[in-house]
Amino acid sequence: VFSLRLEELHGSLADPVLGSIGFLNEIMSRYPNAIPFAPGAPNRTFVDGFNPMPYIERFVRYAATTRGMGEDAARRLLYEYGPSRGVINDIIATAWSRDHAADIAPDAVVVTVGAQEAMLLTLRALFGRSGDQLAVSNPCFPGIVGAARLLGVDIATVDDGPDGLDLDQLRGACQLARNEGLRVRACYVAPDFANPTGTRMSVAAREELLALAVEADLVLLEDNAYGFTAATSDELPPLAAMDQHRVAHISTFAKIGVAGARVGFVIAAQPVCGEQATASVLADHLAALKSMVTVNTSPLCQAVIGGMVLAHGTSLRELGAAKSKLYRENLRLVLEALDRHLARDGRPPQGVNWDRPEGGFFVRVYLPFAADAALLEESASRYGVLWTPMSTFYLDGGGTNVLRLSCSYLDAEQIDTGVARLAELVRSRL
Amino acid sequence: VFSLRLEELHGSLADPVLGSIGFLNEIMSRYPNAIPFAPGAPNRTFVDGFNPMPYIERFVRYAATTRGMGEDAARRLLYEYGPSRGVINDIIATAWSRDHAADIAPDAVVVTVGAQEAMLLTLRALFGRSGDQLAVSNPCFPGIVGAARLLGVDIATVDDGPDGLDLDQLRGACQLARNEGLRVRACYVAPDFANPTGTRMSVAAREELLALAVEADLVLLEDNAYGFTAATSDELPPLAAMDQHRVAHISTFAKIGVAGARVGFVIAAQPVCGEQATASVLADHLAALKSMVTVNTSPLCQAVIGGMVLAHGTSLRELGAAKSKLYRENLRLVLEALDRHLARDGRPPQGVNWDRPEGGFFVRVYLPFAADAALLEESASRYGVLWTPMSTFYLDGGGTNVLRLSCSYLDAEQIDTGVARLAELVRSRL
Repeated sequence: VFSLRLEELHGSLADPVLGSIGFLNEIMSRYPNAIPFAPGAPNRTFVDGFNPMPYIERFVRYAATTRGMGEDAARRLLYEYGPSRGVINDIIATAWSRDHAADIAPDAVVVTVGAQEAMLLTLRALFGRSGDQLAVSNPCFPGIVGAARLLGVDIATVDDGPDGLDLDQLRGACQLARNEGLRVRACYVAPDFANPTGTRMSVAAREELLALAVEADLVLLEDNAYGFTAATSDELPPLAAMDQHRVAHISTFAKIGVAGARVGFVIAAQPVCGEQATASVLADHLAALKSMVTVNTSPLCQAVIGGMVLAHGTSLRELGAAKSKLYRENLRLVLEALDRHLARDGRPPQGVNWDRPEGGFFVRVYLPFAADAALLEESASRYGVLWTPMSTFYLDGGGTNVLRLSCSYLDAEQIDTGVARLAELVRSRL
Repeated sequence: VFSLRLEELHGSLADPVLGSIGFLNEIMSRYPNAIPFAPGAPNRTFVDGFNPMPYIERFVRYAATTRGMGEDAARRLLYEYGPSRGVINDIIATAWSRDHAADIAPDAVVVTVGAQEAMLLTLRALFGRSGDQLAVSNPCFPGIVGAARLLGVDIATVDDGPDGLDLDQLRGACQLARNEGLRVRACYVAPDFANPTGTRMSVAAREELLALAVEADLVLLEDNAYGFTAATSDELPPLAAMDQHRVAHISTFAKIGVAGARVGFVIAAQPVCGEQATASVLADHLAALKSMVTVNTSPLCQAVIGGMVLAHGTSLRELGAAKSKLYRENLRLVLEALDRHLARDGRPPQGVNWDRPEGGFFVRVYLPFAADAALLEESASRYGVLWTPMSTFYLDGGGTNVLRLSCSYLDAEQIDTGVARLAELVRSRL
């Protein structure tokens, strides 16, 4: 029988990033009854009883009347092919502009199959010559690393410190690249409660990052997946609202809308100039590339999401409000449970500690021993609780003694029981 | 204001393939009232009045009962994240195996965002080292060329002759590559009524191609988008049914299901071996790569498609039967109208000719003058009829005097009027 040789397949398939995702999925499938602090999946409260039909109908009415298409043409939109750039771009542009007091043109938006496709398209467009590097935080969201590996984009790592991306290190990476005749072309950054660290950048740090981007001539790829988890009173402006030309803004409706629709978007308003170019912005080129990746995002799914945004005052903030509240409450419950179960006498055992993020899905727990595959296996089999080794998010072997808890999927009782089990595991090892 | 330079973006954005797609879309949007023989879009008969809900419910019942998940878990499947490889793989494997008297395992199937993502993933997995080439038919479907450009995969062209791919040329291309220390790693082929030529390969040619693939150690990427348009009595076996190990079979539900769902699939049963590999098939690796492209195909859309397949006796052939019939009838109408309007006295004018394909969406018309952008502009503005210059499908400047008619989108009256207008245009130039 004919067979292929693994070493002749593309190198990204041998990358540890893919391997670690496979391992985590595998262990979760083996322990379906363990309490999973592992995934960043949406809470079931928002999934059970979800009915997409009213939202689809809402979008059809909007297209039929506000756009003046008429009902038949509006309904046809859902089931035919559609433009690569999307069919709800105006809704997203209006909502985003309203939420952030910005002025985003619909033509600057490309609707994508989740944030992941937006990352792939943006990397592909920006990385056109050898010697260009993508700076990424370390530890990092595996999706951006995986997209870079798939496209053969070189990576430079910059530590994600307690206040987010280490800007001195980023400056250093740019300098180092220049010294070697290379260039940091773009930097991936999640300023709001990054996955996996949960860190958030202050406004001052955002301003400094934008100034550095101008100085070093970088494009910033802003991942905004968790920005919605901030309380409204505590929101910080997205980088793209501070400088829409330096920043390509990537987001997803998986968390604020519905994950099963697989709809995300990128705002890419950068003008593109050149001898042969007619007037265009980066979004035009992303749409052209998208025609070679997925052709277009399901218009049926876009209708579900478009209708959801319309039904929430054409505001992404309003759409995410109830979810934001539940996730903040879950985060509070996780921190409270850690205090209760792991710091019984008011402080944690020697060498044990954890972060206190103000938003996002993730809490890091620091241990005086390795939080590795062996510990996870024991945790799942003997204690019935699952989490993610932070080492899987590092590109250089860091994070060995740290684990990540994700608070999004569980209810209050599961959180309490799960943290109690984790505390048992930790104490058994001390 | 900051701007990007076109020449620093990825080279695929400057490729003529992307440019010609943009041009065709642009001219279609400028002449919305012209009769469009241009797109390969599904006929409106199958779009108007389409209701996805019964199919979604059908899939939920299947998952709840046949898979024993229970109703709540089955319904949750639609709205949560899901596995990268898909949630209707068993349905597709069963249907395909039944239709082609084959034995495809569900694990050999990856559900993708249309055939386009399947092409991208398969190319990415197979092309891991420099010096490897993808052989493609010339003229060629732009989607495979675009995916190759996006990934930096080198292309070797092989003429698509009157009986499909020219196998002597393919043999020659393999030999030429070997002489230069290179290798033809894979060959893209659409044996059934290829886009854009409409050619079909005989069973003997298929057997010869498979033998050549073994001899030259190629993987064949079989694009089956138009196979369903054959009459049942006139069907030929897909390459993958003749040798599932040499062939990665790519197909789409855009034509037999509903285009707006954006669901396609790839069957990739090739065993993958290597020192570090646990037992796997190529589909496992495609699913891993997919997690870096789109994460997963919308399970809501998969449910629509899964339900449609179940509702048609778990058979892709039955699902496509009514559509197959309508498209064959449309093709007959196009050929009849060409006879009537362009060959009034029993034969066409000097230098004018056309193909007589037995299936598919496309008919080539050969002219004694250039079928170029200028002629298309005149055709649209003065005669109200749109078609596609065949030159846009060539990688080396061929096809200048040939245009392509697509029969899928129009009704009988539009076909007759459109061909009459085309005949007027042609006579005006003779």
